[in-house]
This record gives sequence, structure tokens and C-alpha cells, in this order.
Amino acid sequence: MMRNIARLRGRLAERSVKLRPHLKTPKSIEVARRVMDGPAGPATVSTLQEAEQFAAGGVRDILYGVGVVPSKLDRVSALRQQGIDLSVVVDNVDAARAVAEQSRRTNDRIPTLIEIDSDGHRAGVRPDDTVNLLAIGNTLHDGGAELRGVMTHAGESYACRSIEEIVAIAERERAAAVGCATVLRAAGLPAPVVSVGSTPTAHFAGDLTGVTEVRAGVFVFFDLVMAGLDVCTVDDIAVSVLATVIGHQAAKGWILVDAGWMAMSRDRGTASQRIDQSYGVVCSVDGVPYPDLIMVQANQEQGIIAVRSGSGASLPHLPIGSLVRILPNHACATAAQHAHYELIRTGSREIAAQWPRFQGW
Amino acid sequence: MMRNIARLRGRLAERSVKLRPHLKTPKSIEVARRVMDGPAGPATVSTLQEAEQFAAGGVRDILYGVGVVPSKLDRVSALRQQGIDLSVVVDNVDAARAVAEQSRRTNDRIPTLIEIDSDGHRAGVRPDDTVNLLAIGNTLHDGGAELRGVMTHAGESYACRSIEEIVAIAERERAAAVGCATVLRAAGLPAPVVSVGSTPTAHFAGDLTGVTEVRAGVFVFFDLVMAGLDVCTVDDIAVSVLATVIGHQAAKGWILVDAGWMAMSRDRGTASQRIDQSYGVVCSVDGVPYPDLIMVQANQEQGIIAVRSGSGASLPHLPIGSLVRILPNHACATAAQHAHYELIRTGSREIAAQWPRFQGW
Repeated sequence: MMRNIARLRGRLAERSVKLRPHLKTPKSIEVARRVMDGPAGPATVSTLQEAEQFAAGGVRDILYGVGVVPSKLDRVSALRQQGIDLSVVVDNVDAARAVAEQSRRTNDRIPTLIEIDSDGHRAGVRPDDTVNLLAIGNTLHDGGAELRGVMTHAGESYACRSIEEIVAIAERERAAAVGCATVLRAAGLPAPVVSVGSTPTAHFAGDLTGVTEVRAGVFVFFDLVMAGLDVCTVDDIAVSVLATVIGHQAAKGWILVDAGWMAMSRDRGTASQRIDQSYGVVCSVDGVPYPDLIMVQANQEQGIIAVRSGSGASLPHLPIGSLVRILPNHACATAAQHAHYELIRTGSREIAAQWPRFQGW
Repeated sequence: MMRNIARLRGRLAERSVKLRPHLKTPKSIEVARRVMDGPAGPATVSTLQEAEQFAAGGVRDILYGVGVVPSKLDRVSALRQQGIDLSVVVDNVDAARAVAEQSRRTNDRIPTLIEIDSDGHRAGVRPDDTVNLLAIGNTLHDGGAELRGVMTHAGESYACRSIEEIVAIAERERAAAVGCATVLRAAGLPAPVVSVGSTPTAHFAGDLTGVTEVRAGVFVFFDLVMAGLDVCTVDDIAVSVLATVIGHQAAKGWILVDAGWMAMSRDRGTASQRIDQSYGVVCSVDGVPYPDLIMVQANQEQGIIAVRSGSGASLPHLPIGSLVRILPNHACATAAQHAHYELIRTGSREIAAQWPRFQGW
């Protein structure tokens, strides 16, 4: 984990761009403190529950990165009244109007970024829809909120087939955000922040001109989806599920373990990649992958481990009670199934600490 | 929920077969008390954490339904020393030997069922493998454990395409379990309990002769997978995720809500059914499904709602801040993403109670 963090921090430092890590992946103050610039942030969150928990842990500069709605603004204001620099995101005039009204009512200019849809992946204003962009900007600025800038997320980078594609999507992400900030500024509106990011684009963007900060989350742990994209290697994956062998079905070449989808999640993110890792890659307790050994099926509390079909690899000898580690498709989803992390240092099997996670909304 | 519980309880009462509900679905003592015969059970669990939590809540008769391994036996004994009638499951001689040794060491005959593999779905002794069955039975019985009988789970019933198939799989499940109990008894071994069950087979088994108890879990809530199997109707589904509209992408026919896979889970159990419900069926806040409106994509905290492709249905008018309810593919997986249930009575929108869930292992 520390190596993964150092890699991205080093890359962004060379380009003089701030890292605003997305803490939805770890949901742990201990991990947060190791990935942020300092104990106060900056940070990104995906829920107000995360904002509240991290604020309680000392984080002061927090971007709530999912489009805000009127019913959530009182919780936003409550955090801001505690002195937290909590900023929000909108992509439509209705939400912008609600934020402006809340700003006037609370006599507190709520810092707000306009979300840009750089790749058709989910929310956001289309970069060429300047009419809408300026309407939102004016609604915020004239209405009493603090227009802080723009943000976008290149979600399509997860579906790339090559590093070249990631580089191209990163440039599209940058160009969309910088272009929209330029449109706002040309109209006399403020846009000091230009925030972009996804783990793939953060690691391969060739140019970050005009970008003020990069957001990324899953890179702290990495996972099989990121390894399948060549953003990391399997050896970089810093989180795994420890499971025990509970049985065998020798005729089928199956080993059964006491970790199913409750422990791994139902995420099958590698299903659409070149190599489908099914429910995860099986390693020795020391973290070394067995050749072509994967979790092929997952029941609630039972996983079925077998050799990858057609690989010709042989099933390792793992008697009842043997321990294995399973690397996840998607670290965010797998970690979310657990109430804490057990920390082990490289080369050790000993649990050095338990780090709690939080959950909920 | 109460109607679902009454339906299965009534069916089994007519056949004089005991219900041992699987509490892995609700993981809530409040739900457990409404589905069990009485506050003491009987019940089935999938983890020792569930056994410990339900024991703390007053449940006394608990089957731990996943193959036990040596490293878990001290937790089993600790519960039994508190007076809990906790029984375990094995499907191999190694585990049976460990249970027998623990029984002798603790001077406590641990009640043990032998798991039978009635349909090739996961763990268990093949019903025709009488050599192995008797070896496990003798290891337990002669070694000092209490051989309590056999159990099986017709996991393949989830993949059925018709009620006729479910009826056939239910008979195979029954015949496998009863046949293996008969083999044990013929060899002079005790097998008082013959435990079968899955939600589909529990609801459609034609004959339960020789069966002493039925296990089922998801029926308390039901879900879209069960509705797709015609085991229930969509109207029977008793659990949903309440979400708020946070945006629109009108050009694409998308409505964005603040519930993604973190709230719904990544379960896509209907993907292999006749009607793929993607990430869930979208209803009004009062629980009435909108025609052909489903969650077509799920990000961590954002869901994308759209009309089912090719249905010709039109997108309802749901402005920013509107509430919707989303019915899940798999109730066990979706409920597992939440720390509590909010109880609403039929016909009301008011939250009558909060029922905590537990998690972990």
C-alpha cells in the first residue's frame, strides 16, 4: 500500500498537481492519514457519512463528489458550521438553485464544483453544452454560493484495452474540464479549481496543464481490474481476503473455502477483460499466486476454487484447514464487505494492527 | 414479510415438517423472532458470528450450516458450554475426525450432520458414495461426536426454468437425504435428523416423506430472482432500497439516483433468467413498480435508471429530489450492504422501527 501511494504521489508531485485522494475505497482514517498530504486533507468522499466520519478524524478539506440534492444540504451545512471546508458538486440548475438558497439561508457561501461529463459515463454537463454550464454557474455565483470550479471523472477509463487508450481518455478528461473552466472564466465567473481523475488516468495522463488537482481512490490497494488494465501488476495488490479450506470435490477438481461472495463481493469486474479472474486469484498465505488458481464460483459463505479452464495447471495440495489469500476483482467492493482491515507488514504473517472501516450513509 | 413467513410456515405445518429458517438472510434478531417457532429457535446460520449473535439474542437451537474446520471448533465449544444446542456440518473424514477429537477433549458430544451433495452444486458427499458416507459416520459416532443425521441444500433450484423443474429437484433433494439417512441407519448408525431445503424447493416440494426439517432463508423477503423463478410475485418482495433522484441525462433517457452498487450489491442474479432486471426494479416510494423501469448501471454511489431497452415504456417524470424504491435481485446480498432495516407497515410511509443487522465473521 505504501509503495502504491508513493508511486502516485511522486508522479503528481513531478507535475505540481495536488492529489485529492478518494477515500471511498479505504473508508478508514488510518489509511486516509497515509495517503493524504497531511492529517487535514485534502480528500474526496462519496457519501456524507464518509464526510462526517473523516471530519471527526480531523480531515478539514473535503469534496463530496456525488451530485448533491436539497435533502442533504442541512448535513452539508452542519459540517461546514464545524469549520470543515466541505465542497459539493452539482450538474443541473435545480440543484444549483438549492445550494444557492441554502447558502443565503445559512449565510455561508457553500463551495460548489460543476460536474462535467467528459466521457458519457454517468452524471455531468456535456462539455459542449455551454448554455447549461453557464446557467448553472450563474445560478450558483449570482445566487450566493461559491462557484469553486469544475470536476470530472473519466469512468470509461476502466473499460480501456490498452495504455494508449487510457492516455487518450486522460487527455479527453483534462480537455473537457479545462475547457469548461475556461468558458466559465470567459463569462466572468470564478473557476479556481479544475479537478479530474480516476485511477487509470491519474497514472497515465501525459499532460495535466490547467488541472489543479487529481482524484483517485482504488490505487491505494489496486486490484485485479487495475492489473488487467496494466495500471499495476498483480504483485502491487495490497488487499486480500484470508480464507480456510473447508472441503474438496476431487472428481470436479474443486477446493471449497469459507469465503464466498459475502467476503469477496459479487463484483465481476474482470469478466469483460482479456483475462476473466472470476471471483479472484488464489494465493498462498504469503501472497504468492498459485498458477491459474481462481475462485470459480461464490455462494454466500462458500467459495469454489479451481484451476482456470484450459490452463493445464494442476491443483495444489491444500488439505482441510489450509489458509489461502484471495485477491479481489475490485478493492472498493471487497473491502466494503468487511468491518476492519488486518494490517500485515511485507514479509510477515503477523497482524500488526486492526484498522476499522465504516459503512452506511 | 409477515405474509411470506405465514405462507411457508403454513405449507410445512400441513406436512408436519419443522421449519429451521436460515438466518443468514436477515441477520437480525427482530426478523429472526418473527420467523422462528419461538424465541429459542430452531435456526440455521452460515457463520459462527451469526451463531454468537443469535445466541446472545436468546436462540438456543442453531445449526451452523457450512462445513466446519478444526480452527473453528473452539468457538463451537464455547457456545455449547453456554448451553446452546449448536450443531455442525462435515462432508469429509478429516473434519469428522477433528470434531470427534474436540468432542472427546471437551467431554461434549458435538452434534454433527453429514452434508450430502444432492445436485452437484457445491459441498457434500455424493449420495451414491456410501463408502465415504459410512466412513464419516463411523468416524463421528465411534470417535465420540453425536451423529445427528444428514443435511443437503438443492442449490441448483435457483437455476430452474419452471416449477416442474423445481418439483423435480426437490424430490432429488429429498431422495438423496432420506437415502443417505437410510444407509447410515442400516449400518447401525443414528440419523434422527433429515434436513433439506432451499427457498424454491421448500415452496414446491410435492412430497417430504422422511424429511424432519426444512431450511430456507430468502423467502422472508423474497427478491427478483425468486420472482423470476415464479416462487413469488414482485408484489411479495418485502425489502427495497430507498433512493433519491440526483440528476438526469435527458439525451440518453437516464435518471441518476444516489444508490449504486454499495446500496444494491453487485449481485446480478437475474442476468441468467428470462427477464434480466439488471440492478433492480424501480418503484414509486409506495412500492408500485414503474413500467419497465430498471437500474441499468451501478457505480459505487450512483445508479443509472432507464426504461428497459425495447419495452417502449416512457420515462416517468421524477425531478431532482424525488424518492424511489428499488427492488433487489438478491435480498441476502442487498441487505448485507446495510447496517439496519427501516421497518414500514403496509400502506404507510412512516418508519415504525429501526432493526439492526450484524455483519462479519
